[in-house]
Amino acid sequence: MTEPLRIAIAGLGTVGVGVVRNIQDNASLNALRAGRPVEIVAVSSRDRTVDRGVDCSGYKWVDNAVDLASMPDVDVVVELIGGSEGIAKDVVEKALENGKHVVTANKALLAHYGADLAALAEQKDVALGYEAAVAGGIPIIKTMKEGLSGNFIRSVYGILNGTCNYIPTVMRDTGEDFDKVLKDAQDAGYAEADPSLDIDGIDAGHKLSLLASLAFGVKPEFDNLPMRGIRDITARDIKYASELEYEIKLLGIASRRGDGRILQTVEPCLVPKSSQIAKVDDAYNAVFVRGNFVEEVMLQGKGAGQGPTASSVVSDVIDIARGQILPVFGVPVSALQNAQWASPEDCTSQFYMHVKVQDVIGAIQEISSVLAKSEISIAKFNQYDDVTPISIVIKTSMVEGSTVTQAKQKIQDLPFVQGNINVMRIEHV
Amino acid sequence: MTEPLRIAIAGLGTVGVGVVRNIQDNASLNALRAGRPVEIVAVSSRDRTVDRGVDCSGYKWVDNAVDLASMPDVDVVVELIGGSEGIAKDVVEKALENGKHVVTANKALLAHYGADLAALAEQKDVALGYEAAVAGGIPIIKTMKEGLSGNFIRSVYGILNGTCNYIPTVMRDTGEDFDKVLKDAQDAGYAEADPSLDIDGIDAGHKLSLLASLAFGVKPEFDNLPMRGIRDITARDIKYASELEYEIKLLGIASRRGDGRILQTVEPCLVPKSSQIAKVDDAYNAVFVRGNFVEEVMLQGKGAGQGPTASSVVSDVIDIARGQILPVFGVPVSALQNAQWASPEDCTSQFYMHVKVQDVIGAIQEISSVLAKSEISIAKFNQYDDVTPISIVIKTSMVEGSTVTQAKQKIQDLPFVQGNINVMRIEHV
Repeated sequence: MTEPLRIAIAGLGTVGVGVVRNIQDNASLNALRAGRPVEIVAVSSRDRTVDRGVDCSGYKWVDNAVDLASMPDVDVVVELIGGSEGIAKDVVEKALENGKHVVTANKALLAHYGADLAALAEQKDVALGYEAAVAGGIPIIKTMKEGLSGNFIRSVYGILNGTCNYIPTVMRDTGEDFDKVLKDAQDAGYAEADPSLDIDGIDAGHKLSLLASLAFGVKPEFDNLPMRGIRDITARDIKYASELEYEIKLLGIASRRGDGRILQTVEPCLVPKSSQIAKVDDAYNAVFVRGNFVEEVMLQGKGAGQGPTASSVVSDVIDIARGQILPVFGVPVSALQNAQWASPEDCTSQFYMHVKVQDVIGAIQEISSVLAKSEISIAKFNQYDDVTPISIVIKTSMVEGSTVTQAKQKIQDLPFVQGNINVMRIEHV
Repeated sequence: MTEPLRIAIAGLGTVGVGVVRNIQDNASLNALRAGRPVEIVAVSSRDRTVDRGVDCSGYKWVDNAVDLASMPDVDVVVELIGGSEGIAKDVVEKALENGKHVVTANKALLAHYGADLAALAEQKDVALGYEAAVAGGIPIIKTMKEGLSGNFIRSVYGILNGTCNYIPTVMRDTGEDFDKVLKDAQDAGYAEADPSLDIDGIDAGHKLSLLASLAFGVKPEFDNLPMRGIRDITARDIKYASELEYEIKLLGIASRRGDGRILQTVEPCLVPKSSQIAKVDDAYNAVFVRGNFVEEVMLQGKGAGQGPTASSVVSDVIDIARGQILPVFGVPVSALQNAQWASPEDCTSQFYMHVKVQDVIGAIQEISSVLAKSEISIAKFNQYDDVTPISIVIKTSMVEGSTVTQAKQKIQDLPFVQGNINVMRIEHV
């Protein structure tokens, strides 16, 4: 029998408890797969007294999670506190500096400091595992780093945030508007009290920046990631999109363009109802990867939750127990490039445009005139008189994003236009 | 710069050429990901003169593929000849005996001799990679062995043979019958001249036996795998199933039952149209895995073809270059158990039954009487008079497979029944 792998868990929230449960319940299987036992030796959490439903009495408790990073009998620190700054960052940095392996579910930390942390891990020859940081139980990090390693990746895209998929799914099925559905989701515990991280696309952006790094061998750069969330999607938009045979999904998209620049963007898009991605509903995540040999692979599963996220944490731990220490972003840090980023504004696609007008007399002509002057062809034009203000929905032909943005501004300035014009990209994914 | 990893390729068919192309086209990326260059040093194929579209002039050629297994400058033998016996088996055995790593796409060989070959690989401390053997480009072997390692697996099931998914898809969309669609597929090169391996479910069975081994820590046992193919599915069955809101899919299913026995079976099943698996069409493969922590994960992609299969071969090669040598079936050979197999006959589900009768007078009563005596409740009963003989389609309530088999035989013996009764399981996957 070889020596046990000793882990310390920083943070005993939902995921932390899930990891404890797994290490206890699946102990025999984990040992078989890892080639040695996996043991928890220490934990850290603010409150020792709360009943978490698992027995943590056999573990050392420390008040300050950073202390776990210095414990001599700890091989792996599992960081499940979260947040890109503060204690989580301290724990991870200190653990790596002390030559300990780190496993984390912290997408924000890696999106902001991934390249530096990867360099530190590489220097200390330790693992920095983050399977749990992207798409919950879906083993997308391993798939990108290992399963599809023999591919130049062309694009990776998908549904990366469960809340942002759940809310439009309910809006579609009930016809209720965003605020109502969000409120219900918050009351039911499906959405955070402060939902901004989710519904403004930030969480999806954190994840996408890591996938883009793995896909294209570039340093993750969250600051160069345009993000738009789901706040301005209305039940009407979902209905109008449906009548055009599309569903609305918040997508994270990263792709390498012909000129070598890399696009990364998080935005609500219209996808054809007949596409696989349109069928991914509720809180599921799905990631599509296209490579020069594999063509396309899709992975789907629960993007969050205690069990799925713990599954990913433990698979990283078992890799470490087996001695599988890979470069954090799939290639040595010295090979990670600074990407030349493309803007979504440079990208050509079809667009959906929803304009609300006070009165339709003259409006259609003036809007058409702006579009014509902008050289934007109209593929489909629908007018809805059953609402006040009247809704005009335009599906454009292929056109560059910046052209649509300019035309949108001109139409927005027309005197009869009410409220904000909603423009969304149509992705034939 | 570390030493290159030197590979030899046995078999330059479609997949072999794909691997050559990958090693040539993706050389820089492969080296970055592998931590060292990956080089082809030797190849073997029956015909040296045929134009394969890739330049193999720089490689040593041997006439007998087994000779590759003894070449001192070869680290990895990639076996792409196929077949469970003969030269492919000789190459793999000899290479492992000589302490060389092996990567293979040979599902038949592993389904029959997997446990012995795993023991040999373990004894010699070399890798035996077979990602390409199951579901083409989909990294399902890695997912089962590593990505979901922290899970007791409850079931793994899916669409494992592209031909068996393509043919019913076309039958559904065109209304044409099996023989016609198969003939067209053969003429177009989508189906083999001898299609038995595919359409009788054997290929799916080979793959399923490997997935079952990985899922449940048992020795693969192809001989204990009941298989039924798609030959007896008619366009009528597809139509009748559709009217009941089901699609027909050839599924491979492996699951652990409450009593510890393991079910593995390949058979055409009815799946709800609303399910994800019903939406996997054409030559795509999809594999669903359920575990005690991850809940459910699904992987989908091209199940065959030059590029996807080469992608999987090369990912195995890169793992070896990195020094990632894992147990062949996820746990040490000494821990692999001899499964107690359950029979599909023991399993309870709803069933679809299609009986063709000469004349309906009295027939319904007699069929109903047999079902009633067998204690099989009828959930839905449809009669189709637009065909001769008349079709009677029954959807049963939940019932044990063996009960249905016995009732089927009794109905088959009724004098007014024509042709074979078609019974298929309804899987609410």
